[in-house]
Amino acid sequence: MKILIIGAGGMIGRKLTAALLKDGSLNGRSIAALTLADIFAPEVPPSQIDIVSVANDLSAEGAAAELIKDRPDVIFHLAAIVSGEAEADFEKGYRINLDGTRLLYEAIRQAGQAESYFPKLVFTSSIAVFGEPLPAVIPDTQVLTPLTSYGTQKAIGELLLADYSRRGIFDGIGIRLPTIVVRPGAPNKAASGFFSGIIREPLVGLEAVLPVAETVRHWFASPRAAVGFLIHAAALNTESLGQRRSLNMPGLSATVGEQIEALERVGGSDAVALIRREPDAKIIEMVAGWPKNFDAQRSIDLGFSGDNNFDDIIRAHIADELNGRIGKP
Amino acid sequence: MKILIIGAGGMIGRKLTAALLKDGSLNGRSIAALTLADIFAPEVPPSQIDIVSVANDLSAEGAAAELIKDRPDVIFHLAAIVSGEAEADFEKGYRINLDGTRLLYEAIRQAGQAESYFPKLVFTSSIAVFGEPLPAVIPDTQVLTPLTSYGTQKAIGELLLADYSRRGIFDGIGIRLPTIVVRPGAPNKAASGFFSGIIREPLVGLEAVLPVAETVRHWFASPRAAVGFLIHAAALNTESLGQRRSLNMPGLSATVGEQIEALERVGGSDAVALIRREPDAKIIEMVAGWPKNFDAQRSIDLGFSGDNNFDDIIRAHIADELNGRIGKP
Repeated sequence: MKILIIGAGGMIGRKLTAALLKDGSLNGRSIAALTLADIFAPEVPPSQIDIVSVANDLSAEGAAAELIKDRPDVIFHLAAIVSGEAEADFEKGYRINLDGTRLLYEAIRQAGQAESYFPKLVFTSSIAVFGEPLPAVIPDTQVLTPLTSYGTQKAIGELLLADYSRRGIFDGIGIRLPTIVVRPGAPNKAASGFFSGIIREPLVGLEAVLPVAETVRHWFASPRAAVGFLIHAAALNTESLGQRRSLNMPGLSATVGEQIEALERVGGSDAVALIRREPDAKIIEMVAGWPKNFDAQRSIDLGFSGDNNFDDIIRAHIADELNGRIGKP
Repeated sequence: MKILIIGAGGMIGRKLTAALLKDGSLNGRSIAALTLADIFAPEVPPSQIDIVSVANDLSAEGAAAELIKDRPDVIFHLAAIVSGEAEADFEKGYRINLDGTRLLYEAIRQAGQAESYFPKLVFTSSIAVFGEPLPAVIPDTQVLTPLTSYGTQKAIGELLLADYSRRGIFDGIGIRLPTIVVRPGAPNKAASGFFSGIIREPLVGLEAVLPVAETVRHWFASPRAAVGFLIHAAALNTESLGQRRSLNMPGLSATVGEQIEALERVGGSDAVALIRREPDAKIIEMVAGWPKNFDAQRSIDLGFSGDNNFDDIIRAHIADELNGRIGKP
C-alpha cells in the first residue's frame, strides 16, 4: 500500500513516519511507498521502503493534486498552522487550515471523477473545537464551540470530512488530538507549552515556569499515544461511525498538581524544585476556557487506547527523547 | 439606517422587504436606504424609502465588496441554494452557500481594515444542521450533525459567523429557521414540500399528495413568524450570546395528523378530502432523519416568538396569500 503523510515534518509527523517504517505495514498490508510532505521537504529516514520527500504548500494551486498523483491508499493529513499563529495571522490560518484542507478534499474528489479512487483519509482535528461553557466531563455528543480561529478551522475541516465521506468521495476519519505532553524540543510560545515545559525542562536540570495554579485540569496524550491513535484510525473500519466521523480520543485527564506528583515519583524532588511559580493572568484566563476531561466512550469502544497514567507519559519521554537518562546532560 | 438584504428575491426576502417598508424603521431607527440583491434583480415595491435593486452573484469575484460599498448598518444574508439543489449539484452548493457566505464575511473584514465598519449581520441558517441520531426534543446545546451538503454548508456558515464576530469583524447572529409552512406558490420538488402542499392545495380546491404517515412529527414556522425572527435578530443586543451566535428558533412542533386536524377546523372536511395518501419510501426515509421538536429556551429568553398553533398558521396563509378566501378561485 501507498501512504501519504501531509505535515510529515512536524513532531507527530516524524514519529508517525518512524512508527510506520518500523512496522513496515499498516492494517496487515506491507507499505510499498511512503510520501512525506511538508512546507519544507521532510528528512528521509533510512529505510528499505521507497520514500519520497516533497516540499509542498497545500494551499497553493495544484499542490494537492500533485500530492495525490500516485493515488495513495491512506492519507494522513496533519498539516496545520498552530493555534497561536492562526490567532495572530488570520489570513494565514484560514489559508492553510481551511483552504489547504478543502483543496486536499477537492483534489481527491476531482481524482475520483476521472477514475476509481477512494482513499482512507485520517484528519487530525483537536480538542480546540471545544470551548467554554463546557461540562466537567465532555461527552461524545458535545456541541462544537471553538474559541479560536484554529479551533474554528478544525471544526470546519470535520464538517467537510463528514460530508465528503457521506458523498463517497473518500473514507474519512477525524481524530481530535488531546494536548500532547511531553512535547520534545525547545520551549515554544504556545499558551499550552507549560504543560510540557514543567516536565521536560526539570528532567534535564533546567528551570521551568508554571503560569497557572496546580488545580488546573487538562486533557493529555503522549506522542506515543497520538501516533497510536493515528495508526489505529487508518486501520479502522469506519462503517459504524455514521455521519459522526470525528472522535474524541481516550486521553488522560490530570491536574498540574498530579503532573508534578508524577514528576516527583519519576524524576525526583530535585526536578520538582526547578518549577518556578509565576502566575500569568492572560494564560490563566485562556486555560480556564479549555476542556478538562472527556468521557471518550466511542473511541474506547472502537479500540483506541491512550496513556495509563502520567508516570508512564514521563517514562516514555525519558526513553524516547533522553535515551533513558535524566538530569543535566 | 441603511439595510442590505441578500437573497431579497426569495419568498422570505420579499416578505421581509415588505415588513421593513411597512414599519419604515428598524430597532427605532428610520430606514434611509434599502438595497435588495439577488441573482436576478428583485422587484422594487412602491415606497418613500430609497430602494436600490441589484443582480449580484455573491460567489463572483468582487461581488460582495460591491454589495457593501454603501456600508449598510444591517445585512440580512438569506441567499442560498436550497437543500435539494445543493445535494444534486455539489459544486454549485459549495460555491454559493459556502464560498458566497465566506466572501461576504471577508468583504466586511476588508472594509473594516480600511475604515471603521462594524455592521450587524443576520445569517439565515437552518434546522438542516441537525440530523439523526437526535433526541426527541432537541436542546440548545445539540451537536451539529448535518446529513446533507446544504446542512454542512449552513453549519460552516455558523462557525465562520461566530469566529468573525469573536474577532470583532461584524456583529453576527445566526437564525436556524424551521421548515416554513405554508409556503405560497406552486408545489416544488423539495422533499419537505408536502408539509405545505397538504394545506396550500386543498385550500384552493386542488388535490395534494401526502407521502408519509400522519404520525410524522416536524418543526415549523409560518412565513410571518420567520420574518419576525429576522427582524428581532437584527434589533437584538448580542452581548449575551457569547460564542454561541446561532440560535434555534421557537418553532411549532406538529404531526402531519395535527396539521390535517387544523386544516379541517379552518378549511373544512372538503379540504381534507383532497389529501391523497401516496406513501413514498424515499421521502419517508429522508424525513425520518429530520428534527421533530426543539426546546428553544435560549431564543424564547431572548424575546423571539413564533406561532401559537397550526390553526393560526393556516389562517395567516389565508389572510396573506388568498385575500381571506378559501375554495376554488
